[in-house]
Amino acid sequence: MITRMMSDKNMEVYFDNAATTKVIPEVREIMLETMDVEYGNPSSMHIKGVGAERYIKYAKEQISKQLKCETKEITFTSGGTESNNLALIGMAKANNRAGKHIITTPIEHASVYNPILYLQDEGFDVSFASVDEKGIVDVEKLKGQLTNETIMVSVMAVNNEIGAVEPIEEIASVIKEYNKQNGTNILFHVDAVQAFGKMVIYPKRIGIDAMSMSGHKIHGPKGSGALFVDNRVKIKPIIYGGGQEKGLRSGTENTAAISGMGKACEIMYARLKENLASMKKVKEHLINGALAIEGVTDNSGDAAHIASLSFEGVRSEVLLHALEDKGICVSAGSACSSNHPEISGVLKAIGLKQELLDSTLRFSFCEYNTIEEAEYVVEALKGLLPMLRKYTRR
Amino acid sequence: MITRMMSDKNMEVYFDNAATTKVIPEVREIMLETMDVEYGNPSSMHIKGVGAERYIKYAKEQISKQLKCETKEITFTSGGTESNNLALIGMAKANNRAGKHIITTPIEHASVYNPILYLQDEGFDVSFASVDEKGIVDVEKLKGQLTNETIMVSVMAVNNEIGAVEPIEEIASVIKEYNKQNGTNILFHVDAVQAFGKMVIYPKRIGIDAMSMSGHKIHGPKGSGALFVDNRVKIKPIIYGGGQEKGLRSGTENTAAISGMGKACEIMYARLKENLASMKKVKEHLINGALAIEGVTDNSGDAAHIASLSFEGVRSEVLLHALEDKGICVSAGSACSSNHPEISGVLKAIGLKQELLDSTLRFSFCEYNTIEEAEYVVEALKGLLPMLRKYTRR
Repeated sequence: MITRMMSDKNMEVYFDNAATTKVIPEVREIMLETMDVEYGNPSSMHIKGVGAERYIKYAKEQISKQLKCETKEITFTSGGTESNNLALIGMAKANNRAGKHIITTPIEHASVYNPILYLQDEGFDVSFASVDEKGIVDVEKLKGQLTNETIMVSVMAVNNEIGAVEPIEEIASVIKEYNKQNGTNILFHVDAVQAFGKMVIYPKRIGIDAMSMSGHKIHGPKGSGALFVDNRVKIKPIIYGGGQEKGLRSGTENTAAISGMGKACEIMYARLKENLASMKKVKEHLINGALAIEGVTDNSGDAAHIASLSFEGVRSEVLLHALEDKGICVSAGSACSSNHPEISGVLKAIGLKQELLDSTLRFSFCEYNTIEEAEYVVEALKGLLPMLRKYTRR
Repeated sequence: MITRMMSDKNMEVYFDNAATTKVIPEVREIMLETMDVEYGNPSSMHIKGVGAERYIKYAKEQISKQLKCETKEITFTSGGTESNNLALIGMAKANNRAGKHIITTPIEHASVYNPILYLQDEGFDVSFASVDEKGIVDVEKLKGQLTNETIMVSVMAVNNEIGAVEPIEEIASVIKEYNKQNGTNILFHVDAVQAFGKMVIYPKRIGIDAMSMSGHKIHGPKGSGALFVDNRVKIKPIIYGGGQEKGLRSGTENTAAISGMGKACEIMYARLKENLASMKKVKEHLINGALAIEGVTDNSGDAAHIASLSFEGVRSEVLLHALEDKGICVSAGSACSSNHPEISGVLKAIGLKQELLDSTLRFSFCEYNTIEEAEYVVEALKGLLPMLRKYTRR
């Protein structure tokens, strides 16, 4: 579906699915229903309002079913970034009497890192947990960082640049145990934007207090996001107004985005096993093929949909555009900040050799990608790398 | 287009366009392009990112053209509520060294009123300007409320419940004059959610520093909003992350919503004169017809698309549902808070008689509404009112 022949030589290969995905027909369909038929304002008391509200209810049911939580524990937002901001700022401000200390990691997405910097400006203390050379959080060290002043720990489920899968279940246990022994109420937030739809997480069962999700990474629409917040957790809104979403997120509900995200969730989890197997094959084919080329190293974690490869002697941006000329879309670092190219904090944090920091690309997959596409990318790399190493300056 | 015969007796009449509107085909079309073809992340460096970014640029051009401002003065948000929150909280926090006093009116939308209450909790002082029995702000009195501690004034352009058109140009002049004489820098925010697409406003020419807009009130998509902020104005974000929208609004841009709002803006202003004439006819036909019934009074302001009528001896909700049974969708108060039915602050502020506060409905129009629809509603009211007055308790 995403592949098509562009010319005799060029395929079009979209390996940037961790940046965003294409909306699938079922999602498109339900979104159009909310625009063409049930276009009412869900807050309206008449039939058009009731009709629109039904789409929100259905979407909440789909998501809460996959998370094994109550529907009222799901709040829709405008995306993963807003979900992270709401969780972090909202929980910090609602619980700041208990303490002012927050723990996070050096490999979080900017939409976690920057709200936490904002909270630091507002007087909160921030500690960063350690990660190993694979980007995995050191749980023992994190345990030692917990204090009676700590109110919140935020760790992502899957890293967006290298695909490291974090031990969130273990971290949740450590926090629960600490709370039990010390009578504290340290909250655990998980940025699950890259995990949602690609991994089964039951936040309540594990002991996650808030979990951020996005729709457009799983063939849902851009502008769709959700936040799970455990019933028992105190949280304040960051956007005030008409009191929608039980006062936690005011503003006319975006029924198109919400229904699309619900549908995407439903479909992704129904096909989870096959999707993961399919993406894993593509990922392995690409990595194995690329590693056979000289001067290529692999930084990838266990997530089925993300590969991170470093290419000695070639700048990321140069290789990215050379691949683009062959119809291949990939990412240097994470797309979310790639308009502002900086050296990735994630790659630094995992101790990548200095000379590879700016020679690394992310390839990210969806279930519609194929082995043929991976093979095409390997062949392109084989052809491009010697040439680029010869003719472009570092 | 929105009207169709439901049975021999019933038409379907949607007179709740101030709550939300139906997406028009041109808007639907461009949204689908961003989902089916240019589905990339606008922050991506490759061709799919560039393609998506073009839609944002086009939308910004459409809006800035109508506002006669620069494209970089437009920031896209998830809707009118977020735009109001960003303007009020963002400007208050960026300018709080100059003072802590804010002036607003008693008839603002909840998405202005509630962020201002939040600022009050954060230590800001809030004054409320007076409005007359038509809901028009008393500019002379407001002038007297300005002090050297005042940092911001927020007044809506068109009231969402009664359609009062506020003297924002006059208020801007008063503020400018005060700033000139006192060396202050009081900022003027206008919630133009009910005015955008239905009125020509040039914020820079008038002296408006920030102006909030929404897409879904003008046949654009839900989840679309924009904020004009004058170049020279200091403002802080309320959502932090990847630094999109020049750092003022992080999060993957919702290209579908943004492009849809741009298209809706383009079309609404191209047809502005005809649209206003058409809505005005419908409004006048409805009001004149209704006023011929005993015990009906008119609270409507000058906005072409909003009529507010009070029906002596009948509760709003009862009449609303009786009209609904005839296929007519209207609103009690504003839809944005109608899931939480309270007596309207706007109707109280204009001094509506106590016994009419809960006997008032809003009828709001779009350019596709017809005289026949207005006539059908008048006939429905004629039939329903005597019956409801006889059989339902107050």
